[in-house]
Order: sequence, then structure tokens, then C-alpha cells
Amino acid sequence: MTAVADPVSLAVSTVIFALRPHPSTRLPVLWVPLVRRIRDPHQGKWALPGGPLGASEGLAASAGRTLRETTRLTPRYLEQLYAFGSLDRAPSAADRTVSVVYWALVRSEEADASLESVNVRWFVADELPELAFDHSLIVEYALWRLRNKVEYSRIAAAFLGETFTLAELRAVHEAVLRRRLDPANFRRQMEASGRLVATGEYRAGGRHRPAQLFRHDESIHLADNGPLTGL
Amino acid sequence: MTAVADPVSLAVSTVIFALRPHPSTRLPVLWVPLVRRIRDPHQGKWALPGGPLGASEGLAASAGRTLRETTRLTPRYLEQLYAFGSLDRAPSAADRTVSVVYWALVRSEEADASLESVNVRWFVADELPELAFDHSLIVEYALWRLRNKVEYSRIAAAFLGETFTLAELRAVHEAVLRRRLDPANFRRQMEASGRLVATGEYRAGGRHRPAQLFRHDESIHLADNGPLTGL
Repeated sequence: MTAVADPVSLAVSTVIFALRPHPSTRLPVLWVPLVRRIRDPHQGKWALPGGPLGASEGLAASAGRTLRETTRLTPRYLEQLYAFGSLDRAPSAADRTVSVVYWALVRSEEADASLESVNVRWFVADELPELAFDHSLIVEYALWRLRNKVEYSRIAAAFLGETFTLAELRAVHEAVLRRRLDPANFRRQMEASGRLVATGEYRAGGRHRPAQLFRHDESIHLADNGPLTGL
Repeated sequence: MTAVADPVSLAVSTVIFALRPHPSTRLPVLWVPLVRRIRDPHQGKWALPGGPLGASEGLAASAGRTLRETTRLTPRYLEQLYAFGSLDRAPSAADRTVSVVYWALVRSEEADASLESVNVRWFVADELPELAFDHSLIVEYALWRLRNKVEYSRIAAAFLGETFTLAELRAVHEAVLRRRLDPANFRRQMEASGRLVATGEYRAGGRHRPAQLFRHDESIHLADNGPLTGL
């Protein structure tokens, strides 16, 4: 930790996912908000929300602040994704930046209420234009992590309200994984996971019989991070 | 990626694990090499090997370089662990450092041949003295990650030679997890994992019947990191 003259800047950026209807199919798909760059390098290209780490803020606090500033969002789930620091990230060595990237999940209502402007816009995560710097790779990696994690954690809860039906939970898994899941298999998997708690309440289902409402076991962290959980 | 005056230094450190016999029990346990701090802050305390990120090196290259310089080790497995950047890591704001931490695995022969000196020494990972900065927390987190990962990846291979018996592989798992594993269950799990390839060769086993030699399926990465694998 010796203080040494260091020409490398440090930035914090965030990939924020929400499930919203696809503009053509109307099926729920993953969206991410992006910010248009208003200066060089990469002026005019879209990039992840973020900015330089403040001298008196921690990494996660910096991610939270730039999110609020650009999108007015305060995600319930925020986790460190990876630190990106390869030499060819910026067009010139003078711009060299190491980015500590976080990823966050928000509910669709929160996404709907977020700030949009000519320079802040939501995009379908799997249909992005070419982004500034290495941000296309970063989104690709965040998608990979989310799709892995939804299979072995209760992270899907971050997209849902406090209680939900099994069909609603399955719809989240299907939208994230982009494939149909067999309802009976899904029910068995969720029962075996021990992550769901039956509330004893039911939601009236129109033509269908009432569907049982579940909540997640709050004693299990959204994504267990061992000794770092809650830090 | 705007260049802004930034008082935060950037360092890269590495937690290196090797399996070596415990000094009292002689059973294999996890060890880590540490470096004694020769200046303030925390002069005299033990810390992870590492140093400031060089202006013209990537993050993993920096981890590799400081490892070679302090221990002469070149690990076959090196993966980014986490970026640590909380405000209270250093005793004063002037020393504030964000550390991108890597973790690495080496074989015991490599550990035996590594450089040791009055200021570089191997310690039993679960019996460390109080380390400088937040390095105790970092080692604890790295242990947690290793213990998780050994259960669902072929990462244990990094501790073994090219071929090994099931008993040798189980001994690695037992040493990492610090618990006995049932040999029949372990065999079934490994067969079901699809990660092992039978070589068709056998190792003579003294009083025992010859044990079949396996190797890992090299088409499976030591630890799959999706779009970042191989970067």
C-alpha cells in the first residue's frame, strides 16, 4: 500500500438489469440502462453508468451514487462483478482506467419510474449497439453471471414483489434464461431448493384455480458471498 | 473514463494456496506465503504479496510479476478474487489504496522450491497471525471461495500432477474442505461430474491392488469464467 505516483485512474461502473416487455414480442426480457458519452474518447457512443471513484467513498457507495445520479435508481441488489484493467481498454495510455464494475437488479416498476433522457436510455440487453470501451464485453459477462446465478441462488427474488406465485417465479427464470421451463420440474426444483416459504395465502386466478403465494426465505442472502456478505 | 485527479492508489495482491503437511499433525493442509512489511503503515506485520499496479501492465500480469519477484512462483491457476476498496483499509486517508486481489494455486513441490527468507514465509492458512490492513479478511474470503469452488469445478487439479488416482484426488478435496469424505460417494460424484477421464493406466499400490490413473478433461476450464475465460 505504498503511495506511488500512479497514472492509472479508477472508475466504478454498474450493469443494471430489469425485466421489461420486448418491444416486438412483448415477452419479458432483460434490459439495461446506458448513458451516452458526451465527450471523447468514444463521444456519442453508449456506455455503462459510472464515473471516477470519489476520494471519500467506498466502491459500492460510488456505484450507488452514480446510479442515483444518472437513473434515480436505488437497487435492492448490488454486487461486485469484476475489475477490468487491461491495457487496451482506452484508446490512449493517458486515458488508462481500471473499472471496478458492479451489477444490480431492479424491478420493472422501478425501471419504468427511472430517469430517461436523450442521454440516458434503456436497451434490450441481448440487442445492444456497439458500446464504448470494453463495455460490450462487460455486459456479456454480467449476463453470463446472472444466468448462472439464477440457477443456484434466490437472486430472481430481486425482480419480484414480496410474495409471488410459482408461475411468476418461473416466468422470471424463463425470461432470464431465454428458454421455456417445464412447470412440474420447476416446482420440484424450487421445493427441493429449500429457498421458498409458503405464505398460506392464495391469489385468485381468473379462469384458473387460485395460486398459492410464496415468499423467499429471508434468512438466505440473495447471493451468499461468505465472509463478505453484508460488507 | 475521464482523467480526474485521483488520490486513490491502486495495488494488486495475491493469495497463493498450496497443500503441505501440517507441522504437528503432518496431514496436508492449506498454506499461504506472506511477506513481512518493512515500512509503515503496519511495519513488521505480515501481508499478502503484491504491490502497486505498473503503468504498463494489466492486472493479472501485475499479480504474476509480484508473485515471481517475492516467491519465484509461476502459478498455473490465477483468478481474480475481488476488489477491496473500503475507506478504513489503511490507517490514514493519504494511504488509501484499492487492492485488486487475485488468488492462485500451486503444487506442493512448487511451494517447496519457492523463495523463503526472513521476510517471505509460508503459513498454515487457518492459523495465521493478525495480518496488515484487511488482509486477514481477504484470506478468509479466498478460503471460502476455494472451498466452494472445489465442490463444483475441477480446480483441485491445480494441486495435482497430470495423472492421479481417485484416492489422491479425494485427499486434495479432504484437505481443502477439512473433513473426511466417503470414498464410495466421492467416486460416484466424480464419475457423475464428467470431469474425469480414465487413462487406462494403473499405479502399483504396494499391499493394495493397483489403482487406476485418471486425468481431468482438459476441454473443461479449471474454472469456467464465461466470456472472460482466457482473457
